Amino acid sequence: MAASPSPEFFRRLAAAAAAETLPRFRKGGDVINKYQTGFDPVTEADRAAEQAIRAIITAEFPDHGIVGEEFGTEQSDSRYNWVIDPIDGTRSFICGLPLWGTLVGLTVDGRAVAGMMAQPFTGELFYADGNGASYEGPDGQRRLAVRRSATLAEATLCTTSPSLFDETRRPLYNRVEAAVRLARYGTDCYAYAQLAAGNVDLVIESGLNSYDIVALIPIIEQAGGIITTWSGERPELGGDIIAAATPELHAEALALLAG
Amino acid sequence: MAASPSPEFFRRLAAAAAAETLPRFRKGGDVINKYQTGFDPVTEADRAAEQAIRAIITAEFPDHGIVGEEFGTEQSDSRYNWVIDPIDGTRSFICGLPLWGTLVGLTVDGRAVAGMMAQPFTGELFYADGNGASYEGPDGQRRLAVRRSATLAEATLCTTSPSLFDETRRPLYNRVEAAVRLARYGTDCYAYAQLAAGNVDLVIESGLNSYDIVALIPIIEQAGGIITTWSGERPELGGDIIAAATPELHAEALALLAG
Repeated sequence: MAASPSPEFFRRLAAAAAAETLPRFRKGGDVINKYQTGFDPVTEADRAAEQAIRAIITAEFPDHGIVGEEFGTEQSDSRYNWVIDPIDGTRSFICGLPLWGTLVGLTVDGRAVAGMMAQPFTGELFYADGNGASYEGPDGQRRLAVRRSATLAEATLCTTSPSLFDETRRPLYNRVEAAVRLARYGTDCYAYAQLAAGNVDLVIESGLNSYDIVALIPIIEQAGGIITTWSGERPELGGDIIAAATPELHAEALALLAG
Repeated sequence: MAASPSPEFFRRLAAAAAAETLPRFRKGGDVINKYQTGFDPVTEADRAAEQAIRAIITAEFPDHGIVGEEFGTEQSDSRYNWVIDPIDGTRSFICGLPLWGTLVGLTVDGRAVAGMMAQPFTGELFYADGNGASYEGPDGQRRLAVRRSATLAEATLCTTSPSLFDETRRPLYNRVEAAVRLARYGTDCYAYAQLAAGNVDLVIESGLNSYDIVALIPIIEQAGGIITTWSGERPELGGDIIAAATPELHAEALALLAG
């Protein structure tokens, strides 16, 4: 295959996942009762969505490998591997907040080349198909492009939670937070999408898995941003991750994170 | 007037505010440039939305008082006072996250009796009109009701940021966070709405203004929840606030917050 899945393919994946996640979103009263009886709607949504995504990928690309949060690895000896996180941001999902997302990325020889983040409650799809990064949502369709104008002192910074950072990393993260205009917590995949859209300038996180980040790498990169580990290396394996709107912001933040 | 504004009145307020806020939301690239030139789209949206809301209230209830974040107090000697925060959650707004809201509440003799929270990007309206609390959104219309089944150990807890709490309060807040199943940051008014909807069990914050909370009090109370200060007093003046789905959770959390 070409290394460029079509926008239509991403829309199909997003729709199939949404059919499993949305009916289980905001079932507030049920969560505790069913949790007590061993039933967990979030885990159910996660597993059902991943199965729906795997079925579509397998039908379209039977030779490709698949790596998913819930069901592990298939055919990992392929050069092409799809990396799935059916619900990134399960805490948001549980609290009824529409900041979680369905992530599907494609790596070729270990490098992320295409990916999508879909938020079905807001009806938003952010994707990169190898030819650029795009957005489709209730406010229309457009190309995604990072904001190029913010200095570190003007920058907006997002992270999922300060509790992500261990004792060594927390003071390093705090140096960046102290240097920016505004920091916001609780964002998961949604912050990377907003970085690609030009509203967020930095995302800094720690302890990520590969499936948390592979889908987002092409969206950031094809929107003109930069995403690496805190050591400046390729981010496909997860770990300590920094995404930045510009090389200048990336360098400034990296210097602070280096201690 | 009756102390019960109609759902249609809330819809009008929400639409008028949305006409001012939404066109200024996610103008990513513009924010920094215009910030440098002394123009700030968030402040513009805040001021324009409050003026739109004031115009509708004044036309409908010329004898009522109005208190707003941006334009201060009019006719505060009235028994009826409308309390407005045109954009609660400006950090979310700036970062492109759809968790901010337009808040309008009504007090009679200082007590909050009706209110609304509108999130125009998601198309959601949460309101309480004196006859109960209701929701309208992309997933339909329904009555709002808190979840009654969670113990403290099963509870979901939201707060806007741990940095809200000063040195005295932070350890008290941390005691509650350590006792619950899940904590989530970055939520502003949206968490109170999700508490009324049965997805969040506790919201704990500090340093709130009256206009941050008045609109949300009737939504919580008319959905069956409880909202007070950390001392158990009426919450209309803001300050240290706790909202809980049940009296039991409220009492347990209050005991921890008392030190």
